[in-house]
Amino acid sequence: MPSWVDGQPLEWLSVKDRGLAYGDGLFETIAVSGGIPALLERHLARLGDGCARLLIDLDLAVVRAELLAFSRELGDGVAKLIVTRGDGLRGYAPPQAGSPRRILQGSAKPAYPAGNAELGVRLFPCATRLAEQPLLAGIKHLNRLEQVLARAEWQDAEHAEGLMLDASGRVIEGVFSNLFLVQDGVLLTPDLSRCGVAGVMRAELLAQVQAQGIRCDVRDIGVDALLQADEVFLCNSLYGVWPVHSLQWHQWSVGPLTRKLQVIACDLLDS
Amino acid sequence: MPSWVDGQPLEWLSVKDRGLAYGDGLFETIAVSGGIPALLERHLARLGDGCARLLIDLDLAVVRAELLAFSRELGDGVAKLIVTRGDGLRGYAPPQAGSPRRILQGSAKPAYPAGNAELGVRLFPCATRLAEQPLLAGIKHLNRLEQVLARAEWQDAEHAEGLMLDASGRVIEGVFSNLFLVQDGVLLTPDLSRCGVAGVMRAELLAQVQAQGIRCDVRDIGVDALLQADEVFLCNSLYGVWPVHSLQWHQWSVGPLTRKLQVIACDLLDS
Repeated sequence: MPSWVDGQPLEWLSVKDRGLAYGDGLFETIAVSGGIPALLERHLARLGDGCARLLIDLDLAVVRAELLAFSRELGDGVAKLIVTRGDGLRGYAPPQAGSPRRILQGSAKPAYPAGNAELGVRLFPCATRLAEQPLLAGIKHLNRLEQVLARAEWQDAEHAEGLMLDASGRVIEGVFSNLFLVQDGVLLTPDLSRCGVAGVMRAELLAQVQAQGIRCDVRDIGVDALLQADEVFLCNSLYGVWPVHSLQWHQWSVGPLTRKLQVIACDLLDS
Repeated sequence: MPSWVDGQPLEWLSVKDRGLAYGDGLFETIAVSGGIPALLERHLARLGDGCARLLIDLDLAVVRAELLAFSRELGDGVAKLIVTRGDGLRGYAPPQAGSPRRILQGSAKPAYPAGNAELGVRLFPCATRLAEQPLLAGIKHLNRLEQVLARAEWQDAEHAEGLMLDASGRVIEGVFSNLFLVQDGVLLTPDLSRCGVAGVMRAELLAQVQAQGIRCDVRDIGVDALLQADEVFLCNSLYGVWPVHSLQWHQWSVGPLTRKLQVIACDLLDS
């Protein structure tokens, strides 16, 4: 599998990199099919937003060109892009004239059970809560210990994903997915202004349903609202859409809006 | 300056390291004088606590031996130790049989102005707040974007450190220091069970004052209590103790307990 650092084939980077030292950077995980990166412009837009928030001066045109070339070499699989602030001296202060580093890693598409998409998945109720930090909410930065701890809570194959709440008990997302629910024909997804990762597939699905005139709302969602929902599903930019069929003792049926959006997501990833 | 990876001289590491991918690891920054690492056992104790919290299976005896050998090679300076969970595949799930990685980097002692210790420092009032995450509070993990953002708030030389509050407005720490205050002869320092880094010098000073019968208390501290304090000082394991003389319009005198603890810290770092 290919591995590039700053556009050159390389599997190593300097121990002085601030991505290692402080998680001082961002990443994107991009599905690649037939040499084409899916949802490229949305990935670049989120990356650009993250760089603006973290004050990382990245040339997105260079990143776009590299992602296209890397995807051609990869063919089919997953391209993971990490952007860091580059090397640093000791100390938190960002270098005045920074030189961001670009790391690209290829891997095979994950082999999820076909039943996840067809029949739906069971959610693990994670005890790890997401801290509320508006300065970092929404962007896909490299400070991911909360996700590591949450994902370490279960090892069984029965649970395909975990449900994460924030410190106040609001429903936020899966460990590696965004979460949607349908209530009385309205599509709802949690507000991510305090914590959570605003996924590229989430953004794309929100844009598609708005274009189709389906009512949708981004807002705070409690556990009660989740349990009372007519449909619940997860999404991300690798697997598309997975219906959720259960959480602890609670069960949901796979509904029509979930299936409709699943087809849309599938088309986006395969095209 | 020496740089070791897993005990071998090396300045590079795999792009698959989970320290880079997720900030999945811990670090220690250790003053080294005459080939001897200062406060070694306290650094190892905090590292061990962090590994236990993050479920990283690290052999501390190996780390101790490496730190001693590295310090002999370094002579005088700063030894930065980074421990990561090691390489990983894509995905947050920690590998079942992990192989933690040890990275050691040497650097010169930071050249802080002598006036910081003698006359005291001025604090910058950071707008960046610390999120409350009890699962990660106290340990020195690699998820440090809050500190990066806070330290980026000022570039002038007038402010030697920044004051960080938590999301609820409690006084917690400096960006790279712990904070103490003295009120009516009692030494106070913020409780760090919700956020903040429990510094090695903080722990050592608390132990020393308790041994000397000086009253001290670890508790929640508001901004009002800080402003009303008789003395305020900062500490860390590189510079020892810096008195704080001002924050915005507020000023403090350098007091006797600050000077007493400064001497103790100085002895700990020079011995």
